[in-house]
Amino acid sequence: MDPTVQQQVVKVGRTDREIVTDHVVAEAPFELRIGDTPIAVLMRSPGHDADLALGFALTEGIVLRPTEIATVRQLPGDDQGDRWLLDLADGVTIDPEQFRRNLYTSSSCGVCGKASIDAVRVAAPQLSEGPVLDRDVLFSLPEKMRAHQSAFTLTGGIHAAAAFTPSGDLVALREDVGRHNAVDKLIGALAADVWPLSELVVLVSGRVSFEMVQKVAVAGLSIVCGVSAASSLAIELGRELGVTVVGFLRGEECNIYTGEHRIV
Amino acid sequence: MDPTVQQQVVKVGRTDREIVTDHVVAEAPFELRIGDTPIAVLMRSPGHDADLALGFALTEGIVLRPTEIATVRQLPGDDQGDRWLLDLADGVTIDPEQFRRNLYTSSSCGVCGKASIDAVRVAAPQLSEGPVLDRDVLFSLPEKMRAHQSAFTLTGGIHAAAAFTPSGDLVALREDVGRHNAVDKLIGALAADVWPLSELVVLVSGRVSFEMVQKVAVAGLSIVCGVSAASSLAIELGRELGVTVVGFLRGEECNIYTGEHRIV
Repeated sequence: MDPTVQQQVVKVGRTDREIVTDHVVAEAPFELRIGDTPIAVLMRSPGHDADLALGFALTEGIVLRPTEIATVRQLPGDDQGDRWLLDLADGVTIDPEQFRRNLYTSSSCGVCGKASIDAVRVAAPQLSEGPVLDRDVLFSLPEKMRAHQSAFTLTGGIHAAAAFTPSGDLVALREDVGRHNAVDKLIGALAADVWPLSELVVLVSGRVSFEMVQKVAVAGLSIVCGVSAASSLAIELGRELGVTVVGFLRGEECNIYTGEHRIV
Repeated sequence: MDPTVQQQVVKVGRTDREIVTDHVVAEAPFELRIGDTPIAVLMRSPGHDADLALGFALTEGIVLRPTEIATVRQLPGDDQGDRWLLDLADGVTIDPEQFRRNLYTSSSCGVCGKASIDAVRVAAPQLSEGPVLDRDVLFSLPEKMRAHQSAFTLTGGIHAAAAFTPSGDLVALREDVGRHNAVDKLIGALAADVWPLSELVVLVSGRVSFEMVQKVAVAGLSIVCGVSAASSLAIELGRELGVTVVGFLRGEECNIYTGEHRIV
């Protein structure tokens, strides 16, 4: 499905006002179930929904690895494609109560940054040493990502997440109206083939927040870069888990907030 | 509390690499309770937390007006300031099951754009005709907002939401690592004095998504502008509820997606 739709728009300038047809980013609700249990409803851009279903279940720690999922399918009778179902593999069980709360609040010791970090630590695999990235390769990533953001080119307003090899080759890219969804779709797409995703580098088109670092760490990724800023708790989580966090990656500049040994 | 923190950063350029102290946006979990019922945990920038508590409860339709809340206070025994409590006014009751799901999924007829819009319609007050805005006033808003984004000036990475009078005077502005939180803080700050907020115009520093239009519509606001794009479902919701949706408001240009009669 196309993540963009055509829409009549009134374009207003200094002195003119004209009606044109423009592309806008598509947004629609998406429901995820595991068996009979509703897990989440997200607002997302339609398309790559199976990736989103698998990626979300993994990065939120609902399942621990792709092999815990037997099938990813549309809910029977859903003719709009907005309701998806994961069937667990034989012998795998989950606790429905877990989905009442976010991963970062599942600690019993309360709501604080430390508890949030500890909760992610439980779900994240032990990180490998991970790739080492040449600074020239790092600087080349935003342009490579931008060249493949086809929905952004049409709409000027959709997030992207991309995975690269340490030598800077694009492996996969996903776009979505929601920045977390773009990462979940990317991770879901890659997880079908390999898990954890230790040898890749992730770039997001926006900021690096706590949940971004959570999602990449749970996937075993050890380098996450953002075109925009990183938050305090994202940096703290990165430091605790050994994830390299890079922000403001633009032109031939960036900030490395933690894990700078992986950028040479 | 300060929504920014100081942080050691490795700044990398073409040939240099230096360690500097920089400001980054603060992010920490925030728990909201109503009485004994946990309502939500959000990742937010500390500061203006009472505004966030009230604004969230209103814009998510948990209460229908500020007078349904007797007090907004920190949870007793919470020494970090991350846990907040709303006490309901005498005679007001709420259904805890409601908070298991988002407002836009509370319709019993399923998960789709139409059901999402209908769910918001129930929580939103009947919109007044609302203000009419001169195009020159509209074009002046982003610069006025930018001049007051003090945390953005320090960090380069924090969202803002601002309210203006129809003549373009800034009434209030809030910043947060989360774009929805910035809107909730803004609405919570204003709601303490007047409700609904019919006569104001809201500008957000990012995109206008479905949930943004939901939040402003529930607050009775009839014009929402974004510096970036609007999504398909945001436009549809705006059209259904009579909210003017403006996107790409930059320099002396913008796109009006719906409700263009309010921009003259």
